[in-house]
Amino acid sequence: MRDTIGWAALDKDTPLQPWAFQRRDLLDDDVAVKIEYCGVCASDISAIRHSGDSPLVPGHEMTGEITAVGPAVAGFQVGDKVAIGNIIDSCGECPPCQAGRENWCERFPTLTYGNIDPKDAMPTRGGYSAEYVLPAKFTYHVPEGLPLAAVAPLMCAGITTYVPLKRWGAGPGKRVGIVGMGGLGHLALKIAHHLGAEVVQFTRTMDKAAEALALGADDVVLSTDQQQMAAQKGRFDLIIDTVGAPHFLEPYLAVLAMDGTLCIVGIPEGDLTVKPLSLIQGAKNIAGAGSGGTRETREMLDFCDRHHITADIEILPQQEVNEALERLARNDVRYRFVLDMTTAGE
Amino acid sequence: MRDTIGWAALDKDTPLQPWAFQRRDLLDDDVAVKIEYCGVCASDISAIRHSGDSPLVPGHEMTGEITAVGPAVAGFQVGDKVAIGNIIDSCGECPPCQAGRENWCERFPTLTYGNIDPKDAMPTRGGYSAEYVLPAKFTYHVPEGLPLAAVAPLMCAGITTYVPLKRWGAGPGKRVGIVGMGGLGHLALKIAHHLGAEVVQFTRTMDKAAEALALGADDVVLSTDQQQMAAQKGRFDLIIDTVGAPHFLEPYLAVLAMDGTLCIVGIPEGDLTVKPLSLIQGAKNIAGAGSGGTRETREMLDFCDRHHITADIEILPQQEVNEALERLARNDVRYRFVLDMTTAGE
Repeated sequence: MRDTIGWAALDKDTPLQPWAFQRRDLLDDDVAVKIEYCGVCASDISAIRHSGDSPLVPGHEMTGEITAVGPAVAGFQVGDKVAIGNIIDSCGECPPCQAGRENWCERFPTLTYGNIDPKDAMPTRGGYSAEYVLPAKFTYHVPEGLPLAAVAPLMCAGITTYVPLKRWGAGPGKRVGIVGMGGLGHLALKIAHHLGAEVVQFTRTMDKAAEALALGADDVVLSTDQQQMAAQKGRFDLIIDTVGAPHFLEPYLAVLAMDGTLCIVGIPEGDLTVKPLSLIQGAKNIAGAGSGGTRETREMLDFCDRHHITADIEILPQQEVNEALERLARNDVRYRFVLDMTTAGE
Repeated sequence: MRDTIGWAALDKDTPLQPWAFQRRDLLDDDVAVKIEYCGVCASDISAIRHSGDSPLVPGHEMTGEITAVGPAVAGFQVGDKVAIGNIIDSCGECPPCQAGRENWCERFPTLTYGNIDPKDAMPTRGGYSAEYVLPAKFTYHVPEGLPLAAVAPLMCAGITTYVPLKRWGAGPGKRVGIVGMGGLGHLALKIAHHLGAEVVQFTRTMDKAAEALALGADDVVLSTDQQQMAAQKGRFDLIIDTVGAPHFLEPYLAVLAMDGTLCIVGIPEGDLTVKPLSLIQGAKNIAGAGSGGTRETREMLDFCDRHHITADIEILPQQEVNEALERLARNDVRYRFVLDMTTAGE
């Protein structure tokens, strides 16, 4: 077993604190990764709030350097800069796994934290830690031209928005709306823009408007302004809704064009409620999406490399993890916190 | 003006009764159609229940014979057997109209009954009547080999299920589920089968199982049996949900495969409510569909001609219209009532 240390929620009510734990010794196809950067995702907050007896180490979008490789590993060497996302293993045999879409593994994929790893029967602990051990298959080379810290959020926020943008045809001649401008939203905006779509950012705070335009939006709509919303009626082929707080879907169904798709990626709290006629009139649809598999993740990293896309981040030393979580909880971030996991001290 | 007669709801509480009214004189591109058969759709019941002061003549799937043509009409002659559906006009200029998808006309299409026709400012009156006058553009030749009475339901129930089956890829190698086995459901089953898909009929009444197999189903699942439903988990590429009564969608989302689509065509009462994760896990989606335009309707009639598809019907003389509505309201029909509008007498 390999000793390591991370930031753990020992229960759901106290701040994260340093906590020593162990990773498994490398299996034949494993690599060990020294974690350098780890993004702070809204789902980390949700996981902490719902954590149970076992200490929870969050973090599922990270980059770092390979420090050891198992004997069966090909394509990775000690010293390689790599990225890790929110899935670290899967059954490998079911049709989704065979298609490189391991996020829909029929056995259920092994999540980067808060899960039990069937291979070693140990709880998985996330990237708010010094080292990770995982199969090389779920480790990705970081493109050389991209900054390591700003790549980390691509591994959750990036892939989660890239997959539905591709699936639902974002590209030249299409008009795409992005709802919410946080970690997911600002990456959805950049990716949709570089896919060639006309992109409109929906936001509740006009102080983000200028930044949205700078990030590639063709227009910005204040979603709280009924006149602005009415002017968008029937215009959108695709809307990516990244908002996690409860909100009404009807206004976004109304701005969809015929055959348009409203895709939910933010896991809103509570149930989704819509009127049947809001879907039937115009043959619209509401889709879900979440994360991606190894094939899509490689494709996304290649795409971001070609278009020089990374997250807009604020780097904090790992010791400020609790401040990062508090500020994220009140949306005080532009647009993703990334913890520097190499900083020493208390 | 042309005198005619129909069966009207003079208010929402009394049975339909004979009522004399007038159609417009033919405009240059109009045809007059002597109605021979008119299907009885569940939405007729709904319209009667919500009817107001103006007498309501229901009926929006009918067949008959052309008795007069306007001077600008091409392609139709007196004596032609034709079909009429639930749209009789549209603006003709917006992008959906230009694409032959007039059901999504941006001005809103002119509905066959219960609407005001912008061309003559008169209320539209439906096919429970002796004659209809409408633009030739929304009139369709009935394929010669198909029985006139059984074609009538293709014009609403047929087109409403054909369009989403085609859009969402029902065909060889795809597994399609049909929820509900009424007017829409039994046609969805036949069409999906002839499109080459593997078709599973979901029903709450096992006495329809043998009939579903005879109509082309590869399997039948009793939707009230939790074991049978559990055995279908993750198997379907597409489900067409034709049920108008309020019902839970979660069981049908659970039987969808990765990327699967649940398409609502039955206009269920009340709101649709689903858990976000039911869509996000497996990247599923809920779509709506309703009716079709001139292009799709011609395509559907050609398809039904090639595969000899018509509705399974029970023909009643028009004098039994109220019995038909009462029996349909309690699902006592296999699978569509069609009124013979040529029968005389009280």
